[in-house]
Amino acid sequence: MIDLKAFFHMSYGLYLVSSRDGDAVAGCTVNTLSQVTAEPVRMTVAVNKDNVTAQVIQRSGLFTGVALAQSAGMELIGAFGFHSSRDYDKFGAFRTAEDENGVPYVAEQTVARFSCKVIDEVDLGTHILFVGEVLSAERLSDEEPMTYAYYHKVKNGVTPPKASTYQPEAGVKKGFRCTVCGYILEADTLPADFICPICRQGADKFVPLGG
Amino acid sequence: MIDLKAFFHMSYGLYLVSSRDGDAVAGCTVNTLSQVTAEPVRMTVAVNKDNVTAQVIQRSGLFTGVALAQSAGMELIGAFGFHSSRDYDKFGAFRTAEDENGVPYVAEQTVARFSCKVIDEVDLGTHILFVGEVLSAERLSDEEPMTYAYYHKVKNGVTPPKASTYQPEAGVKKGFRCTVCGYILEADTLPADFICPICRQGADKFVPLGG
Repeated sequence: MIDLKAFFHMSYGLYLVSSRDGDAVAGCTVNTLSQVTAEPVRMTVAVNKDNVTAQVIQRSGLFTGVALAQSAGMELIGAFGFHSSRDYDKFGAFRTAEDENGVPYVAEQTVARFSCKVIDEVDLGTHILFVGEVLSAERLSDEEPMTYAYYHKVKNGVTPPKASTYQPEAGVKKGFRCTVCGYILEADTLPADFICPICRQGADKFVPLGG
Repeated sequence: MIDLKAFFHMSYGLYLVSSRDGDAVAGCTVNTLSQVTAEPVRMTVAVNKDNVTAQVIQRSGLFTGVALAQSAGMELIGAFGFHSSRDYDKFGAFRTAEDENGVPYVAEQTVARFSCKVIDEVDLGTHILFVGEVLSAERLSDEEPMTYAYYHKVKNGVTPPKASTYQPEAGVKKGFRCTVCGYILEADTLPADFICPICRQGADKFVPLGG
């Protein structure tokens, strides 16, 4: 028996992983970035095959992860979690920089950057696990990192459909859910002029919880 | 340039991973257990090759991870982090149970259990990354899980030498370090009858920090 709620007891950070192959630039939110060895420093990250990011990493053999700051806004998380790199310039609205490999990364609301060269790939079915050797790493801020628990509990964050394997527990009793991106507004009433902070849709795209 | 302090901004949980192959039972602390896919549910864990646990997992093709509770004691963490399964019965001092595969796991001070069958192995140099398909999972408690940040900051926990890739920042200015297991006592003076809470050595095995 697999009780999926057992997985709520796992702890993760929240990261953006990006890559570039020529003109193709892509990035997405993940919670699966992990350091796995110290000498040499190696990291793994699992990326959904449906994400453009996975394909760009496969072609370029490069990925760059940044750890989000606890103060990171839903606009940033939403841009990378709820939109596709196919049809949306995720990097356009944020201050970005390029690492030594020419891979762009978000340089604001982030606390550390890790630039990796892919040395192995494991097919996990729905996802590809990339094993990367760290070429460079730097601190971007001394802020606390965002944890997945903080994102869900404090920010009422929902899980990007393709970005993660985690399904948050429904802790919100009264509120409204955005039918476009899944964002949940915890409130008794929905203002007619409400704009989804993640996907910018209007109140007409919201439905009551449990409705 | 690789700034190792950037890795302090990664977030992890703290887990015990165990296995059994016939009479050989082994377990160790890890921070690298991670769910990587949802359908089917798969997890990865990186285990140092020098740990007996890695060898037992390789032989049996099974591993069971438990997530530690935030309230877990240093005795439990120390038993699995600072001793070798070669010469120490790590399970003896704690309440244990056996999963469907006959693998023992610690059933106290833990919040969730994940029993996995190895479906792939990746050689990471110093470590082996095991990819496991989850056969069963259950909640063991509704307590908060222990995060690696909590372990280091609140409990002054040190990093088991083989258990992890993470090196904690030296935040303690005045105190004494156990030369056997690395435990740090934050205090102005060392009581003559002090006993290391992790490895049970006496005060004669402690040296002043910076000394």
